[in-house]
Amino acid sequence: MARIALDAMGGDHAPQAPVAGAILALAELDPSHTLQLVGQASVITPLLDSLFTGELAQHSAVRSRITVIDAPDVIEMSDKPASAIRHKQNSSMVVGLKMQAAGESDAFVSAGNTGAQMVASTVMLKLHGDLKRAAIGTLFPTSREPVVVLDSGANVDCSAQELVDFARLGSVYAQDILGREHPAVALLSIGEEAEKGCKAVLEAHQLLKDSDLNFVGNVEGRDILAGGSERGEVDVVVCDGFVGNVLLKFYESMPTLMVGRLKKSGVESDKLANALEGFDYSDYGGAPLLGVRGVSIISHGSSSSRAIKNAVKLAVRAVESRMSEHIGRRFGGSKAAKVG
Amino acid sequence: MARIALDAMGGDHAPQAPVAGAILALAELDPSHTLQLVGQASVITPLLDSLFTGELAQHSAVRSRITVIDAPDVIEMSDKPASAIRHKQNSSMVVGLKMQAAGESDAFVSAGNTGAQMVASTVMLKLHGDLKRAAIGTLFPTSREPVVVLDSGANVDCSAQELVDFARLGSVYAQDILGREHPAVALLSIGEEAEKGCKAVLEAHQLLKDSDLNFVGNVEGRDILAGGSERGEVDVVVCDGFVGNVLLKFYESMPTLMVGRLKKSGVESDKLANALEGFDYSDYGGAPLLGVRGVSIISHGSSSSRAIKNAVKLAVRAVESRMSEHIGRRFGGSKAAKVG
Repeated sequence: MARIALDAMGGDHAPQAPVAGAILALAELDPSHTLQLVGQASVITPLLDSLFTGELAQHSAVRSRITVIDAPDVIEMSDKPASAIRHKQNSSMVVGLKMQAAGESDAFVSAGNTGAQMVASTVMLKLHGDLKRAAIGTLFPTSREPVVVLDSGANVDCSAQELVDFARLGSVYAQDILGREHPAVALLSIGEEAEKGCKAVLEAHQLLKDSDLNFVGNVEGRDILAGGSERGEVDVVVCDGFVGNVLLKFYESMPTLMVGRLKKSGVESDKLANALEGFDYSDYGGAPLLGVRGVSIISHGSSSSRAIKNAVKLAVRAVESRMSEHIGRRFGGSKAAKVG
Repeated sequence: MARIALDAMGGDHAPQAPVAGAILALAELDPSHTLQLVGQASVITPLLDSLFTGELAQHSAVRSRITVIDAPDVIEMSDKPASAIRHKQNSSMVVGLKMQAAGESDAFVSAGNTGAQMVASTVMLKLHGDLKRAAIGTLFPTSREPVVVLDSGANVDCSAQELVDFARLGSVYAQDILGREHPAVALLSIGEEAEKGCKAVLEAHQLLKDSDLNFVGNVEGRDILAGGSERGEVDVVVCDGFVGNVLLKFYESMPTLMVGRLKKSGVESDKLANALEGFDYSDYGGAPLLGVRGVSIISHGSSSSRAIKNAVKLAVRAVESRMSEHIGRRFGGSKAAKVG
């Protein structure tokens, strides 16, 4: 059983999308799982009532698995992360993560201010062992199974050792969430040869080669959507958060351009929807901030109720698979167990 | 009139694709332009004869505008750039670029070993003024006009000053080749705010703000294919060559995945071809190596004759617009005219 705290105030479509998403998730999940809706109770409670008597009435059985946790402060998308966390102690983010730190919750999901969520998660949950930075692990669709790309934007100017840490984090994610037994880890570069890339990548290549990870070498930009190169399939693609963030946002913008062009040339909407399945980030729901002692799932600001539903389900998988504990084992051990 | 030297031995489909592409280009260009086919004469001459008596017989009038320049050495795709240039002095690349340096040719086009072309171009043509590095300027399709993204892979670990130089180079490219009067230059980052990004980008942002360029601020990965953000359209997107190369290869891999999925869901091929127009790099033909004293166009290794045709036409535009001279003016002037 997992107790998932959901930020009811986070995202462009809050509180409607998170609250509806919570209900949809519970309806699909095992009844042992419960949900903590964190936010302004004066807003959430009436909304729940209206959804349960209105459009989501068929799911009213899940009502008993939802607790509303009052958090009157609201962090805006435009708030500066550190100051928001400091000054809005009664915000859904601070309250939700504090509950997890106190052992009263197992995971936190938010579509709110990403910067604030990263800061609050790191401050309140803390990092495992000797880890220096947490990383966002995002799923990219491929012509076969999705691959984990990280870091997707939590860190810039990463050192070689940090890239190796990301490889380790992504490897646990691929194992626990995607069920890949011995995840193949690749390093994103501008050529497959070990001597191609920027300074940090060149050094990380050597460290990864000497590590206990299943390192399969460099991949290029073209190999991500292909799920690997002719030298083999990959499960995890490691990069600096600057590169990862640019790539993620670039990929997210593709469907808009494609759909516009395809519709213009007369392609039917149903065929389009079919073809684009898996290209929509709401299929994955969110990306975990890997490395914190606990579970914090970052959802897209424009998340629909469907995206939130999938993010809650991802949070449950993270809790059930004990992902955080497994990460802790890789980073909390003796220095000798660490590469570099 | 422009004299374009074309590497007949470069690319996966050489010599067939370059030689046929040369003929197709001349057939479309003003008769004042001529072509120098550089490579193994023993291979090129019979091929020309067979094309002019066979499939391209209708274009046999252009035969008199083609000169074959013998260059018996061949640089392979797998050759190490610096050593290839040193040891294969009679290769098409060295011979073709030497002709330009000697004033016997106006531009060089190749689909061969990109690394070798970059080294040979820099060594033989030299860089303008106080420029430290040349950059590859690639066109990306957008929902409006194409944008220039640079650097697309010539340089990694770029300093802020180098990013500013790329902005200047891209600005001339957009003006001379794309006809943008006062090109809007943006810096690629992970947020639109000036304080978001890696160290070099943060510093470059300030330098660009104080420059005489039409700097419109940061754009994110999502803004490239949109041709800008809600704050305005952009013509030039500046980034480190590591980021640019990863992005370029990622974007080039999109159509394969999309086409596969769309065909599977029953979309007709003609509608697809229509929608994907402009997504194919062969539409643009090649990317200039900006900053060298002259014109060197880098084409994709897998270039078709159509891609080569477009690359030759791009080379002609670069020569006719005096792009290199305009770049020289921006970099050759007094130090006072330079930012940073």
